[in-house]
Amino acid sequence: MTPQHPSATSALPHPAPVTVLGLGPMGVVLAATLLDNGHPVTVWNRTPHKGDALVTKGAHRAATVAEAVSASPVTIVCLKDYATMYAILDPAPLRGRTLVNLNSGTPAEAHAAARWAAGHGIDYLDGAIMVQPQLVGRPDAVFLYSGPQDVFDRHQPTLTTLGDPRHLGPDPSLAVLYNTALLDLMYATLNGFLHATALVGTAGVSAAKFADLAVDWFMPTVVTAGLTAQAPDLDNRHYPGDFGTLEMNLNALEHITTTSIEQGVHAAQPHLMKQIAEQAIAEGHGDKNYLAVFEVLKNPTHPQ
Amino acid sequence: MTPQHPSATSALPHPAPVTVLGLGPMGVVLAATLLDNGHPVTVWNRTPHKGDALVTKGAHRAATVAEAVSASPVTIVCLKDYATMYAILDPAPLRGRTLVNLNSGTPAEAHAAARWAAGHGIDYLDGAIMVQPQLVGRPDAVFLYSGPQDVFDRHQPTLTTLGDPRHLGPDPSLAVLYNTALLDLMYATLNGFLHATALVGTAGVSAAKFADLAVDWFMPTVVTAGLTAQAPDLDNRHYPGDFGTLEMNLNALEHITTTSIEQGVHAAQPHLMKQIAEQAIAEGHGDKNYLAVFEVLKNPTHPQ
Repeated sequence: MTPQHPSATSALPHPAPVTVLGLGPMGVVLAATLLDNGHPVTVWNRTPHKGDALVTKGAHRAATVAEAVSASPVTIVCLKDYATMYAILDPAPLRGRTLVNLNSGTPAEAHAAARWAAGHGIDYLDGAIMVQPQLVGRPDAVFLYSGPQDVFDRHQPTLTTLGDPRHLGPDPSLAVLYNTALLDLMYATLNGFLHATALVGTAGVSAAKFADLAVDWFMPTVVTAGLTAQAPDLDNRHYPGDFGTLEMNLNALEHITTTSIEQGVHAAQPHLMKQIAEQAIAEGHGDKNYLAVFEVLKNPTHPQ
Repeated sequence: MTPQHPSATSALPHPAPVTVLGLGPMGVVLAATLLDNGHPVTVWNRTPHKGDALVTKGAHRAATVAEAVSASPVTIVCLKDYATMYAILDPAPLRGRTLVNLNSGTPAEAHAAARWAAGHGIDYLDGAIMVQPQLVGRPDAVFLYSGPQDVFDRHQPTLTTLGDPRHLGPDPSLAVLYNTALLDLMYATLNGFLHATALVGTAGVSAAKFADLAVDWFMPTVVTAGLTAQAPDLDNRHYPGDFGTLEMNLNALEHITTTSIEQGVHAAQPHLMKQIAEQAIAEGHGDKNYLAVFEVLKNPTHPQ
């Protein structure tokens, strides 16, 4: 295959021009990564000097948002929130172009933004960045996107420059909802680890020693090993208690709560888990396995 | 090396006789695993028929606890709790022998049992089984033990028959404390996963689809990847906020709580994490990283 062959040209297209609005720590890294990979990049920020280093690297600094979005088929927005996005964006020059919004927000805000974009003839993807700035551009840096499949497909080469783009579906709220849920899982796991570390710390065990067993062995081998295989049971509301029942798990949670109090560490986390298990048992799930607390978590029936 | 060589004999000793008291689901598996690996096994249970299958496999059924413990240098106890252990054990025939207690309990109960054993001239190990019965005997089935190093070393070949024995230290409470802490971590992680799954479920995402990303990618790659490396920071109470501050994490926790309420799922878990972060900020940790909530979890200063 020679460079003159048409398919070689289509397989190696010139990187597409991209506009980046919002040059906080993440926006700067996004623009720099695009520049490093040969994309013509136009930037705009409310305080222009935040783009100085990017201009030195070859970015074009637009004087206005309208000028910035007119320079590229796709504009990536990386601002504080949706309200800031509406405050700076004039929709007219975006008509017929694509807006990729990486603000965090709520599912309702994502739906509203998709409706706003559709009303102005703007192709819209809502996204969430799942890694810290220093990991952007690595092939394993996951970015979540939701919105029309064809819009995602069209810009996938550009989005792949930034990391590993995952399209979750056409519902525009999926990216922010996944982002919220994954952070929720992260904080719950960290709080569990920190609380457990506090417990063993009462006997003088160091965090480093505990992490060696808890993080490197227990988490992958015992806690998460079977979870993906069990996930369809959640979808089927099927919680067989063959290897242990929620009643047994409640005993363990009572024991963890009592031990926390006896050892003088914070007890509210295990106490709350105990209450949730008690509620699941009160709703008739006592002879099922622990995953049956999912019924309480997804459908809270009591005032919270 | 020939079979006649003395070191060959010491490297391959006859499996030691073992007594197992308590033939619930776990006790039966422990005894069966020892039998399968050539150990002479004596069993006792309050309701004798629970040992029928073991007798068929070659176990000796003792008529009394005293007869049972007299048959072996080591007795493994697998009962409901410490109170049950004291109720059935006559300490006299155990003098000069080893008692390995696998009941679950509190650190205070483990300390009391060690004192009781020492008072009767009994070598004592307190232990915890970290796997379900069907995994006993596998080389990766972790059992935790605490108590005198020499007692552990003497019985390590027998304990290795049951899985992967880890000696945590001479403090007899370490096994039950680690067990409690690891279960705490497990429940916190499961509750976090189930709550996150409930959140994405509000947009029709299946648990199976979410687990694929959350458990198989996010947990090992983002959540636990750096945790062991960061653990020494907990020991040093050093929480540098260079890549994100507790103030920023509080925003995220407020967002998770709000989204949970808006989407109609249980909100108490994220709300509690938000309160803990607020307390850490009130105590002066707002510009540190998220791990600074450890200060609140290990030293609760407010009534709970």
